Amino acid sequence: MAVPAPTPAATAAREILTRLHDVMAGRTNAQAKLNNVVKIIAEATASEVCSIYLLRDGVLELFATQGLHQDAVHVTKLALGEGLVGTIAKHVETLNLDEATSHPEFAYKPETGEELYHSFAGVPIVRRERAVGVLCVQHEASRRYDDVEIEALQTVAMVLAELIAAAGLIDESSGGGAGARDNGPAQLTGLKLVDGMARGHAVFHQPRVIVEHTVAEDVEVERQRVYSAFRQMRESIERMTSQAEFGMAGEHQEVLETYKMFAYDEGWSRRINEAISSGLTAEAAIERVQQRQRMRMREISDPLLADRMHDLEDLSNRLLRIVSGQLGTAAQMGLRQDSILIARNLGPAELLEYDRRRLKGVVLEEGSLTAHVTIVARAMGVPVMGRTKDVRHMVAEGDLLLLDTSQQRVVVRPTATMEEAFEAKLSVTQRRRAEFAALRDQPALSKDGVRVQLMMNAGLRDDVAALETTGADGIGLFRTEFQFLVSATLPQRERQQRLYKDVMDAAGDRPVIFRTVDIGGDKALPYMKGPEDEAGGEENPAMGWRALRLALERDALMKAQARALLEASAGRTLHVMFPMVSEPWEYEAARDLVEQQRKWLADRGKLGPGAVRYGAMLEVPALAEMLDQLLPRLDFLSIGTNDLTQFLFAADRGNPKLADRYDWLSPAILRFLARVSRTCREAGVPVGVCGEMGGRPLEAMALLGLGIDRLSITPAAIGPVKAMIRSLDIGALRDVIPTLLDEAPRDLRQRIEAWAIGNGVALD
Amino acid sequence: MAVPAPTPAATAAREILTRLHDVMAGRTNAQAKLNNVVKIIAEATASEVCSIYLLRDGVLELFATQGLHQDAVHVTKLALGEGLVGTIAKHVETLNLDEATSHPEFAYKPETGEELYHSFAGVPIVRRERAVGVLCVQHEASRRYDDVEIEALQTVAMVLAELIAAAGLIDESSGGGAGARDNGPAQLTGLKLVDGMARGHAVFHQPRVIVEHTVAEDVEVERQRVYSAFRQMRESIERMTSQAEFGMAGEHQEVLETYKMFAYDEGWSRRINEAISSGLTAEAAIERVQQRQRMRMREISDPLLADRMHDLEDLSNRLLRIVSGQLGTAAQMGLRQDSILIARNLGPAELLEYDRRRLKGVVLEEGSLTAHVTIVARAMGVPVMGRTKDVRHMVAEGDLLLLDTSQQRVVVRPTATMEEAFEAKLSVTQRRRAEFAALRDQPALSKDGVRVQLMMNAGLRDDVAALETTGADGIGLFRTEFQFLVSATLPQRERQQRLYKDVMDAAGDRPVIFRTVDIGGDKALPYMKGPEDEAGGEENPAMGWRALRLALERDALMKAQARALLEASAGRTLHVMFPMVSEPWEYEAARDLVEQQRKWLADRGKLGPGAVRYGAMLEVPALAEMLDQLLPRLDFLSIGTNDLTQFLFAADRGNPKLADRYDWLSPAILRFLARVSRTCREAGVPVGVCGEMGGRPLEAMALLGLGIDRLSITPAAIGPVKAMIRSLDIGALRDVIPTLLDEAPRDLRQRIEAWAIGNGVALD
Repeated sequence: MAVPAPTPAATAAREILTRLHDVMAGRTNAQAKLNNVVKIIAEATASEVCSIYLLRDGVLELFATQGLHQDAVHVTKLALGEGLVGTIAKHVETLNLDEATSHPEFAYKPETGEELYHSFAGVPIVRRERAVGVLCVQHEASRRYDDVEIEALQTVAMVLAELIAAAGLIDESSGGGAGARDNGPAQLTGLKLVDGMARGHAVFHQPRVIVEHTVAEDVEVERQRVYSAFRQMRESIERMTSQAEFGMAGEHQEVLETYKMFAYDEGWSRRINEAISSGLTAEAAIERVQQRQRMRMREISDPLLADRMHDLEDLSNRLLRIVSGQLGTAAQMGLRQDSILIARNLGPAELLEYDRRRLKGVVLEEGSLTAHVTIVARAMGVPVMGRTKDVRHMVAEGDLLLLDTSQQRVVVRPTATMEEAFEAKLSVTQRRRAEFAALRDQPALSKDGVRVQLMMNAGLRDDVAALETTGADGIGLFRTEFQFLVSATLPQRERQQRLYKDVMDAAGDRPVIFRTVDIGGDKALPYMKGPEDEAGGEENPAMGWRALRLALERDALMKAQARALLEASAGRTLHVMFPMVSEPWEYEAARDLVEQQRKWLADRGKLGPGAVRYGAMLEVPALAEMLDQLLPRLDFLSIGTNDLTQFLFAADRGNPKLADRYDWLSPAILRFLARVSRTCREAGVPVGVCGEMGGRPLEAMALLGLGIDRLSITPAAIGPVKAMIRSLDIGALRDVIPTLLDEAPRDLRQRIEAWAIGNGVALD
Repeated sequence: MAVPAPTPAATAAREILTRLHDVMAGRTNAQAKLNNVVKIIAEATASEVCSIYLLRDGVLELFATQGLHQDAVHVTKLALGEGLVGTIAKHVETLNLDEATSHPEFAYKPETGEELYHSFAGVPIVRRERAVGVLCVQHEASRRYDDVEIEALQTVAMVLAELIAAAGLIDESSGGGAGARDNGPAQLTGLKLVDGMARGHAVFHQPRVIVEHTVAEDVEVERQRVYSAFRQMRESIERMTSQAEFGMAGEHQEVLETYKMFAYDEGWSRRINEAISSGLTAEAAIERVQQRQRMRMREISDPLLADRMHDLEDLSNRLLRIVSGQLGTAAQMGLRQDSILIARNLGPAELLEYDRRRLKGVVLEEGSLTAHVTIVARAMGVPVMGRTKDVRHMVAEGDLLLLDTSQQRVVVRPTATMEEAFEAKLSVTQRRRAEFAALRDQPALSKDGVRVQLMMNAGLRDDVAALETTGADGIGLFRTEFQFLVSATLPQRERQQRLYKDVMDAAGDRPVIFRTVDIGGDKALPYMKGPEDEAGGEENPAMGWRALRLALERDALMKAQARALLEASAGRTLHVMFPMVSEPWEYEAARDLVEQQRKWLADRGKLGPGAVRYGAMLEVPALAEMLDQLLPRLDFLSIGTNDLTQFLFAADRGNPKLADRYDWLSPAILRFLARVSRTCREAGVPVGVCGEMGGRPLEAMALLGLGIDRLSITPAAIGPVKAMIRSLDIGALRDVIPTLLDEAPRDLRQRIEAWAIGNGVALD
């Protein structure tokens, strides 16, 4: 980064700044300082008038002037949006006019005597992204001010903001001032990533930096600080890039590309350098360049460019954080109260750093249904809303937020009425939850005495606690890939083994069914990436190279996992099942691999499991054609309804346009499941369902009606489903289902629901 | 774009350029000019030595020197890569050394007397991206040259390239010189997008601009030319952006974003302006800045950044094309011989502009299996290879290329041996094709007298000609979406109707089965885009909101198409089928919609079809569960094996990792198809297969064995499949298939193939 020769703008600003610095360092009172400031600026810009308006009690008050009548000081007041000064403050924009009176917003204030002056230029005084005042100059002749002069005014306004804040002339605690984010309630919409409701205060994952000192003591020192910050920033982006290759960073690859381009852009560093040459501190210079960028942006209004400018804004904030040494995330500072986290994006490991008790929700500007952070948050039970545009602009740190992702919205700074309505809705949910909790120690026994195995899904170590709180019969689906998703490097066998052992220890007598890793496809993993992934990923990742397909080809991973599972069992019965089995031979190969590891352990006299029960997931439709060959080799079959139904209907469940188009209670799905259930029963192989379908009382009831009597569902659903089971006569239901499936009416859901209501089944 | 003050580099270069300009305009011979040049440069850079080496007959020959012994001129010669000068030419790079002798490549040439000089700087003289010579300066003192001096040398080298070319000192026709693309044969690999082989000469879709004049006559004129080019370029990018929204441009959205950012980047325009200030023409200035960028890039070697720099390179070329008025694509200039088109990417409409007889193949740097251009090229039968990295760098306009996408490779500048091997392979294919053509007028009749309906797939108007050349029994699948894919705007009803009528007219008595549009998902369309698409497209487009799903919701499109089909039929029988039917009600709704249009026509006394035959595609597995409800309402069923098998196996057929994992001849697929075929037979509904599966002789044979006797396949497959049928005893096959499916061995394909061979079935 070469030191550029100072530009005319820099020279002009620097002259003023040097003089302002002396004023600010002086021991006079604030009013005297302001009086001095307007004099200096009027002189430096050869203007007949220079005035400062500050926002007090919501109106802009003339605080100091050179050139207008002194009687008007503290007398002339303008509302936000009133006159030129009000317009500047309201829109946080600069005006530069050769004929002030011709502007549609011009408002004449006779006490000022300003009718003499034709030209007018004003810039907002900005603090925490809000206008707290206006600095303006006027001139008798009708000529627009030069760009150089406007630049200088903007720089001076920045310094004034510091002076004003230091003097306590504005009330910062009220958040005062006008700006993009105003103070009333607001509602933002987004995309539901994880269902739930939460109330909490906004916490920015990466806190904003407030620039405190604007005038440099020593320009060379500031220049060195920026140099070093640029170096650090570039290094940190290189690091993020390599993390991104490892799937850990929250940022998208494209964002990183843009970061990188800006980080090495000589235009940007040059402009910051020029701002330093004009006498600003490193922080102020970065902020100054960013302000200018924001203003330019407003004029361009191009959506593509706007996206890239958000990247530059982020990077600018990153540079500020580096230069000011404020590098920690909110997680490192610790959450102090119920919080809702605000971020552009987040990695799964970053999410896990937060205190789970205080983190009530997450709102992201980006995010997707299949992002790792979404998968992990879902497992943690933390509601997440994604694609919430501009949330970081509309929300201020500490704002109260009401998040309701089922409505795909977050309310910012709610009124009391809004809060009450929210609390009412929340309390219904909580009351019900309490009722279900009371069922904890009751068995999942139907009215006619059928004992249903009601198990829960888990994936993180902490999930196991839910076994106690829900009274589940075991863990019907332990998603081993979670440990992989939240780690920066491949979890070594020892770490895997420790987790599996802890989980089995905690479960005690209750079975834990471990599903071998389902990674790849939409759960692409770091350390598993090959050169072919560079080419741009899979077009349809759900139907991609994932789960067992990947595991059998890269079998070192699978072997290590098998060893970890076998050793962790240590004399107990190990339940293991394989995901995405598409053809019987895949199941065979996976089972052989585990058996080989088992033999290896036995040969060395190491303690393995007392017994191993093998299962396969039925998620791929083709496998259903081959049950005659598969079932004789299985100990149990588990139907993964999430994936299965999306393949059967060729409808991506993450696609909002298709989410409600095909029903789990459609004749096609139930006929398919009935056939599988019947085949399993005939073969004497236990069959269960794991997936969201089993977690909804009506759907769960239908599954029981098809002959299935093992469900593994999310812990929160155990209570409602158990209540349904305890009110159900399964035999009676199994009598009516075949007729319904034969008839296969289009309103099958309504028919099943009507039966449930008619027979007093508890459905909520 | 403000006019920057000239930098020291610009001032230095300009001084030299002014003097060079006089030399070049002079009437002396080339040698005298070179002698003058070295004198001027030595003086201007205060160097004791300045020399020019030019490439002649593959070696670098000292052509002129100031400071070295004059006896060495035309005597000292260096091979490419030999010594510092050879290194510069070979790698097209600049060297700047304070101690020349310490460089590992230093080679001492006693005749020059250069041992006196410590410091050394040299820059390549570049013509058409290849080094044609070297300009170097030397200095007694051991000090590196300033960046400013190096810049000036590089600018001068550019001007020298012009002088040298004008004087005919280098042989341009040989393509002479060293560079990234050398002259030997090379082999590039890519991704097969459309299968096939082709031999042809490289034609760049967007031809490269060669800068002819480097020294400006009038700097202000050049500045205006660049201003105006920038304006035009920005406008053209805005246009491309709106085209991209309409799916027509070949460029990706992200590429356009980057284009846009660069187009508005003040750094870039400023640097070009500086180069103009130094005395270069607009063309030379653009090229000069780009050269510098390329050199900087080599040092960074960051893959992310490299991608963006390719974008800048493209944009720079675009700017050059604008400023030099060379705007046409190769299509507009017309192909003059068998050609293989080279492009970064291409839109479907751009492809259709080329003369189909001369366009033998396409090689793209980007591209994907589901891009519209790929779909259209497949229909046109033009082989396409995508993701061929650096092809635009490695290939020169006019180079002979041998493209073999089945091998995923293109051979550049092949040796005679390579060409022979290629021709041999090609002729085998062509001979077979001739044999199959001879079957044209023979019926698709099996040995045991079963008449198979052998129809062809089509989608473009020109495809219909294949009915005659292949002797197909009709068009079993007319893909109406093709007209939509290749149009910039929604094809109006009249245009649709005209196409349908032309196709039916051409088919005469043979049936044409029109499939209503299958758009959306991976065939996203322009005019169909909603605001929700802005959010980033579908995660799994194959399982997305497409085909009938979309058509039933946006039914204006479907109504217009129905009207067009009905009116085009004009008294004939109309065959229409609906894609991606997932539940019976969707078929009902689509049929009702067509019937309503039919009634509308009848009510108005307009001529509609004599009869309408309705069909559904079976592509979504769930539909197979509902055949009892669907079949009574259908006239025919068509199994779309491409989509169906990918959903059954949950394996994206476009994913190279899965392409060969699951076999069409697997027990699961054949059992599924056998069940569907049996159910249709029992219901008395004709069932056919359209999809690639039916186009392969062995797979087609298996389908016939399952009871299916209607196939619709790609025209090129009609011959081979007909040959298979005419050698097959279908009855005998149908006797063995049930046992095979019951047994369902893992090597089912081998068992079927063995039967075919044992029974003398023609399989190729």
